Amino acid sequence: MDHARPLPAYLISRYNGWKATTYTSNKAWYHRLAESGQHPRAMVISCCDSRVHVTSIFGADEGEFFIHRNIAGLVPIYSPDGGNHGTSAAVEYAVTALKVAHVVVMGHSNCGGVKGCLDMCAGDAPELEKQSSFVGRWMDILRPGYERVQGLPAEQKTRALEKQAVLVSLENLMTFPFVRTAVESEFLTLHGLWNDIGAGVLEQYDPAQKAFVAL
Amino acid sequence: MDHARPLPAYLISRYNGWKATTYTSNKAWYHRLAESGQHPRAMVISCCDSRVHVTSIFGADEGEFFIHRNIAGLVPIYSPDGGNHGTSAAVEYAVTALKVAHVVVMGHSNCGGVKGCLDMCAGDAPELEKQSSFVGRWMDILRPGYERVQGLPAEQKTRALEKQAVLVSLENLMTFPFVRTAVESEFLTLHGLWNDIGAGVLEQYDPAQKAFVAL
Amino acid sequence: MDHARPLPAYLISRYNGWKATTYTSNKAWYHRLAESGQHPRAMVISCCDSRVHVTSIFGADEGEFFIHRNIAGLVPIYSPDGGNHGTSAAVEYAVTALKVAHVVVMGHSNCGGVKGCLDMCAGDAPELEKQSSFVGRWMDILRPGYERVQGLPAEQKTRALEKQAVLVSLENLMTFPFVRTAVESEFLTLHGLWNDIGAGVLEQYDPAQKAFVAL
Amino acid sequence: MDHARPLPAYLISRYNGWKATTYTSNKAWYHRLAESGQHPRAMVISCCDSRVHVTSIFGADEGEFFIHRNIAGLVPIYSPDGGNHGTSAAVEYAVTALKVAHVVVMGHSNCGGVKGCLDMCAGDAPELEKQSSFVGRWMDILRPGYERVQGLPAEQKTRALEKQAVLVSLENLMTFPFVRTAVESEFLTLHGLWNDIGAGVLEQYDPAQKAFVAL
Repeated sequence: MDHARPLPAYLISRYNGWKATTYTSNKAWYHRLAESGQHPRAMVISCCDSRVHVTSIFGADEGEFFIHRNIAGLVPIYSPDGGNHGTSAAVEYAVTALKVAHVVVMGHSNCGGVKGCLDMCAGDAPELEKQSSFVGRWMDILRPGYERVQGLPAEQKTRALEKQAVLVSLENLMTFPFVRTAVESEFLTLHGLWNDIGAGVLEQYDPAQKAFVAL
Repeated sequence: MDHARPLPAYLISRYNGWKATTYTSNKAWYHRLAESGQHPRAMVISCCDSRVHVTSIFGADEGEFFIHRNIAGLVPIYSPDGGNHGTSAAVEYAVTALKVAHVVVMGHSNCGGVKGCLDMCAGDAPELEKQSSFVGRWMDILRPGYERVQGLPAEQKTRALEKQAVLVSLENLMTFPFVRTAVESEFLTLHGLWNDIGAGVLEQYDPAQKAFVAL
Repeated sequence: MDHARPLPAYLISRYNGWKATTYTSNKAWYHRLAESGQHPRAMVISCCDSRVHVTSIFGADEGEFFIHRNIAGLVPIYSPDGGNHGTSAAVEYAVTALKVAHVVVMGHSNCGGVKGCLDMCAGDAPELEKQSSFVGRWMDILRPGYERVQGLPAEQKTRALEKQAVLVSLENLMTFPFVRTAVESEFLTLHGLWNDIGAGVLEQYDPAQKAFVAL
Repeated sequence: MDHARPLPAYLISRYNGWKATTYTSNKAWYHRLAESGQHPRAMVISCCDSRVHVTSIFGADEGEFFIHRNIAGLVPIYSPDGGNHGTSAAVEYAVTALKVAHVVVMGHSNCGGVKGCLDMCAGDAPELEKQSSFVGRWMDILRPGYERVQGLPAEQKTRALEKQAVLVSLENLMTFPFVRTAVESEFLTLHGLWNDIGAGVLEQYDPAQKAFVAL
């Protein structure tokens, strides 16, 4: 790989700071983690967005959460066709190998992926419809959600679709046989969250009210 | 989604703690992030493993890193076949929409995914060879790396394959036309890292030495 | 004590969360507790096990329970030989100084200490028989219980011994003169509980049925 | 055990509340805990005092902390004499079987045990000097701490001795060979805390300053 370059100096300096402080103070814990393996209690599926770090919101330390992050935090439908399904592999590993007790899907406000999906479904982003658009093809997973928000006033659509991203993912999770089995035998619970970046609000989906409600 | 459940109390209590401290002290920054969008300088691709949080190692605050996490931190080869390629979508969004300056691929020691790949390629994990094994099919991406470490003594193979995971991913990144263009026009640099969890060591790939060397 | 280290950051952050929420909202109660001393109604003796917190099961707030926790929640026989008997000191303080009305002994399923005792008594754990094994010497307290379950089918022995741990402790409590006096003068009642961690079931010992029955 | 009595109604009602809410919402986690065993990151040694629950201060959920509680949170010196040493057994199990990464010793203000020790050492509590006083014999562990605070003005002695209880325990922990080995090989760290109940302040011992300083 001739194209690899040395790390930018700002990252080296930050690593050195971490090594001299956090790592040094917690060496015993890192040694244990390396020797005893991980036993995370929960898997979190969230967006790649740089503004939403679940490690911050839940004060997560090393060892606590198995974290998968992709565009918009989506989970595709179960499809064992032999393809390279990264999200499905992460879910399979968390549920069947690590045996996590919770899978938390967290969406958020101001999500670029969801905005793109809205534009694409509304016919305003033909470039995303191309077969060669990875973002477009990835956001296809959310199309069923678009149908449910289509009738809403324009100013409500984005937020509603961000929450649909969570619901569609939770529905798709239940199409995985090992997820369904674990949920039905009460060894796994699924949770849907939506984070408002600016307001710092966290809403969770309540099936009784069929709505997201603030914690 | 009738299966969604209320968030476990320990997470609610942690969120409340975050809201009352970190969020409250940094409200201005969260407001800006929500209003002005994200402008992350780097994309990081790393493993879902609960023991390796790049946000910790690089002291990343909200807004700095666009983070994609999957099993073993792998990038598949460019394949615009219309499928739901989550990793490719994340790379595309980071490079073409967010125009990040760096893509950092970070592997790590004690990686369960890489261990599974080693077993699978050595013929010791037939269950991972099944078409229905998402983890197995995902780790297929790393098979070219296995061939390069096959001749090594047994005790060196795992670590060598963990580093191959980084190299194979970097090579695959260059098969994406928009990555290659950005790299060749010097608007993007690629970086390969490997983290030793227990020792807290970070090694980076140096093409001159064709080896990973400690920072 | 040169070996003391700063608290790991995750605990500092959790403390800060508690201080900003629970403490701040209940400051009046904490002030009263500090000024007026404690008047707990009950003492609970339970296991150190991280999975069984009586504060959770009984929703205990600050000030309610005087809690002693040791391996398997055992009480040794009365033995005023001048040694450092931590459990006996805790019982003495609760009954004679705090004058609690109830002493609750709570055992639980999946208890590592009881499992070790079973192995030791069956001759399968010679390392626990050593004089230098603190766990072994502590679990000696439960040997009389082993004799009572020895004849049971193998699959029933563990659970039966977990419950014997409660009964032996209750019997030993009655060897303390100040406990016996308080019980006989009806200023103190003793209670035996066993918690099934997975099923969330709480059973209490009923002397009439000579058995543990679910609440 | 004919003396066992049915649980007071207030505890049955609280258990029923917990079962219908916390347990039901977290059934998956309890199932996992029962099936996969405990993997606590830290051991906490603290006082039985009803006013100081480390589970509250650190927002600890089931599975996180292995908790030993005795009068004043003391650890005796290593003494493998074949006696029933409950605290030593708890430390041994946590460090050698569970392999926790941290042992946290937490003292607190207004501690009845420490107050008794002060009176006893000052000659004001002859009843605690008796061989038959379990509290007195237990607090003997803290006598070396009394010598260090003896010269202080009367109004500072109590608080100083509460902190000595933490330091003496930390020193005694290092007399256990398996603790010393784990600390020296950097697989275990020791931490000393003191909690002011009324003010909600947490101080930690800093060996550099040879003093407790607020977090």
